[in-house]
Amino acid sequence: MAQLSMHDDRLFPADDKVRGIARRIYAETRDLPIISPHGHVPPAWIADNLSFENPTKLLLTPDHYINRVLHANGAELSELGVGREDMDEADNRRAFRLLCEHWSDFNGTAMRYWLTDQLVGLFGVTQRPSAETADAIYDTIQAWIDDETHRPRALMDQFRIEFIATTDDPCDDLHDHEKLAADAAFSATHRVAPTFRPDKYLEPDRADWNERADRLAQVTGIDTGTLAGFTAALESRRAYFKQHGAVSTDHGLTDLEAGYLDAQEAERLFGKARGGGIAPEEATALRRHLLMDQVRMATEDGLTMTLHPGALRDHDRATFEKYGQDVGCDIPYAIEVTRSTREMLNAFGNHPNLNLVIFTLDEDVYSREIAPLAGFYRSVYIGVPWWFIDAPESILRFKQAITEMGGFSRVSGMIDDTRAFCSIPARHDMMRRLDAVHLAGLVAVHRLDEDEAIEQAGKLVVDNPKKVFKL
Amino acid sequence: MAQLSMHDDRLFPADDKVRGIARRIYAETRDLPIISPHGHVPPAWIADNLSFENPTKLLLTPDHYINRVLHANGAELSELGVGREDMDEADNRRAFRLLCEHWSDFNGTAMRYWLTDQLVGLFGVTQRPSAETADAIYDTIQAWIDDETHRPRALMDQFRIEFIATTDDPCDDLHDHEKLAADAAFSATHRVAPTFRPDKYLEPDRADWNERADRLAQVTGIDTGTLAGFTAALESRRAYFKQHGAVSTDHGLTDLEAGYLDAQEAERLFGKARGGGIAPEEATALRRHLLMDQVRMATEDGLTMTLHPGALRDHDRATFEKYGQDVGCDIPYAIEVTRSTREMLNAFGNHPNLNLVIFTLDEDVYSREIAPLAGFYRSVYIGVPWWFIDAPESILRFKQAITEMGGFSRVSGMIDDTRAFCSIPARHDMMRRLDAVHLAGLVAVHRLDEDEAIEQAGKLVVDNPKKVFKL
Amino acid sequence: MAQLSMHDDRLFPADDKVRGIARRIYAETRDLPIISPHGHVPPAWIADNLSFENPTKLLLTPDHYINRVLHANGAELSELGVGREDMDEADNRRAFRLLCEHWSDFNGTAMRYWLTDQLVGLFGVTQRPSAETADAIYDTIQAWIDDETHRPRALMDQFRIEFIATTDDPCDDLHDHEKLAADAAFSATHRVAPTFRPDKYLEPDRADWNERADRLAQVTGIDTGTLAGFTAALESRRAYFKQHGAVSTDHGLTDLEAGYLDAQEAERLFGKARGGGIAPEEATALRRHLLMDQVRMATEDGLTMTLHPGALRDHDRATFEKYGQDVGCDIPYAIEVTRSTREMLNAFGNHPNLNLVIFTLDEDVYSREIAPLAGFYRSVYIGVPWWFIDAPESILRFKQAITEMGGFSRVSGMIDDTRAFCSIPARHDMMRRLDAVHLAGLVAVHRLDEDEAIEQAGKLVVDNPKKVFKL
Repeated sequence: MAQLSMHDDRLFPADDKVRGIARRIYAETRDLPIISPHGHVPPAWIADNLSFENPTKLLLTPDHYINRVLHANGAELSELGVGREDMDEADNRRAFRLLCEHWSDFNGTAMRYWLTDQLVGLFGVTQRPSAETADAIYDTIQAWIDDETHRPRALMDQFRIEFIATTDDPCDDLHDHEKLAADAAFSATHRVAPTFRPDKYLEPDRADWNERADRLAQVTGIDTGTLAGFTAALESRRAYFKQHGAVSTDHGLTDLEAGYLDAQEAERLFGKARGGGIAPEEATALRRHLLMDQVRMATEDGLTMTLHPGALRDHDRATFEKYGQDVGCDIPYAIEVTRSTREMLNAFGNHPNLNLVIFTLDEDVYSREIAPLAGFYRSVYIGVPWWFIDAPESILRFKQAITEMGGFSRVSGMIDDTRAFCSIPARHDMMRRLDAVHLAGLVAVHRLDEDEAIEQAGKLVVDNPKKVFKL
Repeated sequence: MAQLSMHDDRLFPADDKVRGIARRIYAETRDLPIISPHGHVPPAWIADNLSFENPTKLLLTPDHYINRVLHANGAELSELGVGREDMDEADNRRAFRLLCEHWSDFNGTAMRYWLTDQLVGLFGVTQRPSAETADAIYDTIQAWIDDETHRPRALMDQFRIEFIATTDDPCDDLHDHEKLAADAAFSATHRVAPTFRPDKYLEPDRADWNERADRLAQVTGIDTGTLAGFTAALESRRAYFKQHGAVSTDHGLTDLEAGYLDAQEAERLFGKARGGGIAPEEATALRRHLLMDQVRMATEDGLTMTLHPGALRDHDRATFEKYGQDVGCDIPYAIEVTRSTREMLNAFGNHPNLNLVIFTLDEDVYSREIAPLAGFYRSVYIGVPWWFIDAPESILRFKQAITEMGGFSRVSGMIDDTRAFCSIPARHDMMRRLDAVHLAGLVAVHRLDEDEAIEQAGKLVVDNPKKVFKL
Repeated sequence: MAQLSMHDDRLFPADDKVRGIARRIYAETRDLPIISPHGHVPPAWIADNLSFENPTKLLLTPDHYINRVLHANGAELSELGVGREDMDEADNRRAFRLLCEHWSDFNGTAMRYWLTDQLVGLFGVTQRPSAETADAIYDTIQAWIDDETHRPRALMDQFRIEFIATTDDPCDDLHDHEKLAADAAFSATHRVAPTFRPDKYLEPDRADWNERADRLAQVTGIDTGTLAGFTAALESRRAYFKQHGAVSTDHGLTDLEAGYLDAQEAERLFGKARGGGIAPEEATALRRHLLMDQVRMATEDGLTMTLHPGALRDHDRATFEKYGQDVGCDIPYAIEVTRSTREMLNAFGNHPNLNLVIFTLDEDVYSREIAPLAGFYRSVYIGVPWWFIDAPESILRFKQAITEMGGFSRVSGMIDDTRAFCSIPARHDMMRRLDAVHLAGLVAVHRLDEDEAIEQAGKLVVDNPKKVFKL
């Protein structure tokens, strides 16, 4: 029976000298607490200390990274539990077996890396997944899940998660966050912060935009029939989030353009949008106006902005219609940063109260646009690789592309952006290992002294996120 | 006199440990048969078992990779035999000497790699090419060519070519393929398949498009005066090709857009095109309609489609006027995949009978667009690097860019796309070495166990092409 | 107190075998003279043998690579001396201390590499820069500057600079170059050549374009009221530059498009521009016409053209208004080369008298467009990485992207493009080390023999620039 193993030196270069340097750097960051300033863990999991229920629900159903590869290789998303409430144990075992049968389809992927780290390091699995071993592995994980000490709150300790941000609707009452804050013992050592995610309120061409605007009025008690009122309502919700510990707002974007309309035109377009009769170009102009105004608000309330442009959502319309959003058929496209951010950055780019973190799925813009911008504008920070490029070699390409002209001071620090709670330690550990690999490479070619590399590694884990997210 | 050598460990990493792993992986694939599912070897060479005549005609004149570099460094294409029927031995020796004199201009190139492999491994040359050694090397190769055991059919055995596809005009009667199939001894161990290449029939703005459509009518006996007839004629030729062993259709494209017009509009535009009066935008719309219909046909007859977008043909008009097409002045440009394939993939992307292999000359789209698409849609496979990027470091960049999110299961397997028959073993061997290098790198950093890497290497050589091309 | 050191093997790979090869290659080029065919050193520095005055004025104030990173991390450009004439010693020490305090912000950057090389290798500094060591380091450098043997002319010898080009306005009388040429002892072993940089005369939509055209008339005595006269005046100034030793013209460009208007239309647009009433699209058309005519002139006078497209100048308008141009807020953007150069290259691309060097800040176009063009057109050479990507790993990416299809013969050779006189040896040494690293990599994987690599390294330093710039 083939073993599943997780080597202590995983990701470290083969060369003994460089590996030795990497080991020494990593030894200094390995046990530092986790700061997770942006992610998608549902706050109720922690607030209500929910069980992960079963291996399929924990590892497979909600993970569109994995589901998509299984889909490409012939599985139906419904077989994996996507969009279903009726999965019984037999269904879950069948789904889990599918994953195990396709284990080699994940060779060389990031998913394989994170899964192995969890299987071996967390659940104690020792067999390589396959059709034959699927049930035994399922049992091992089920036993781990059923152990009461493996509920989210205890895992927050075990994982050393000091700070974690969730992603929330502006109208959310944040009761889960209130509940956690009210637990003095828990909140003495952990902070679970909400994140203000207003996309749906800033896109006037969405079918549900008017409904959202109405809901905003209802929640704030402010009339959102005018742009002035709508603006005040958004400001009010930002303040509410800030009172509940938020440190940032998050923005999924088609492009990075932002720009003010003149006040009268903005009010006019807003009126058309509220009346349901806005034309597409007008909706785009209004969206850019509203985004610009979010930047203005950020200079006032100090919430950091994370900008995530460049994914075409729901590329496959049939899959979207059957399963909804976020099921693995979003596909990246090329983005432009230099020209499209000019108006935003000319207005606010050096404002002392503003921090903007720009992410990309388009590797081309690292050395060409993002690093040069972050190397000049005080507000701009380079977001670490995200989603499709959140993997070892991709991350090393990122580090090599952005460091030489911008240095390390302009990088966001690790952001896991994940919903997969149990993968958080594996993801942060992977980045710390890759920080060590990159820095060891610089030491090995005598571009940095080892003590400098060690200090730098610590900064990347602690100082950078604290500075960028004002923790 | 400097020696020319071909090291057993060529392309393997310097580090002894990693080299050891690479060697062990490569040892398992080195002697596997060659499957060449797409290329440009003229079928008559094999059918008629033709002699390669002389070293210049074998290695230089038809190879635009080499000619272009010599041209850039001052040679006239005519000196290299391009476009000439009148090369005598003195001319051929002069041309070959030119190549030898410019040997160092190929330092670090893929051409140098393939040439060396052939010179040393196949012809037994031991001297480094130079003005001084040119004639002796010419003599050595000439003697090799003149040996009757070095005709194409014998070389098919020596090279272990199990399957090879040619590229053919839809109106071709495929008599060469028939002749080969009729040779029971040969076809017991080798298969030479035609490939349906309909570009010239799908581009209504080509000067010779009407002539092609007429020819299609003549060959099929179907009236191509209407779109319905034209469609039936193309279907008939696809069936003819399939009967003659074809497994795929090949498409050189300006872009990847495909999309149906409504039936009436399609018929109207087809009529205008047949009348010679179609406007450019109409021709584009009709071309995209016709491509979409090829995809539909592929879902019915199961022929795999290879899509090759992104080369501006005949960049230098003067060279084109003097020497014609395919003489080294095609130049790549940026392509877009995500949005342009959406209509095609929304219609057919998960069809169980469809396989699409997308190639690119634009490295940017690997991690940004092609790998994410292939990681979701069941029909989409990632084509290996092609043409300008079919070289060791470029291929490793490809592997590193596409594997981490898509794994190995979504890759086409090796495709040599070459007309240079004697370079086929060198090209496939290069890919097997690079597979081993890439996999050894994953083993060295403990992302894969060695037995998994060995199994994966074998799949890349055998299983992937068999699956993608339904062999 | 932490030491500052500069290892003999810096930039060389960690692996002992590969490092050994790199060392042996580098040993053969390390002491070769410097040829610097394009840069921005003010000729008066050398002509008048000026003192560098103080460490801040030498290393900090004029270096926008460094200033921009300090700005991003909170410094005002004025604190660094930018745009100021009133910096006293206290100000200079304060500015220099700022740099030293932020030393770790330069970890991993090219600036850190060049600074270290100068600090240790040139000035003899042994302490790592920090707030504590800033004053002592300042004193060490000040003493070095005050030593009369460290004036530019002596340093030309010490640095072994055989040829250096400055960048000059077409109306410049080149008196500094005349003065240097008249110094027989100096000019026996050094050549300081002007470079014709006509951008401001070729962009009819510039606010000062008419003024420039008037000045051109004044300097040449040719009426520039007509395009014919303007053309003659530019030709006259090119001839003047050539008489004064110029070997090239330099072009900072928005894009690479060039194309002739018909003569009448060109004259008409020129008239509108001279009258101050040219529309933006007309100005673009005229600019492309004027650029095309520069290419035509180059085929006649043989001056090499260096083309530098793709930077959005003065991205931050507020910084531009306060500090002017070239202060660190130019940002690159994506460029297109294949289609945009077609007209230029179809007209002149294989002309025997033309050399074009194409630079980019957009790494995507290396393997996709520039290398394929340079591998066919005789006039096209690939410019080495420039500005934001002029750093060790970026340069290695460049070498790996362009060599496999174009070889080494189509590369410009080292171009430092710098104003920082004392960094020139560090920059050329860096490139020689990276040449050795790249070539050693090819030797290590048996793609090149070591004697070939050594010969190639020498060619890159000597033959390539001599060929490309006709020295």
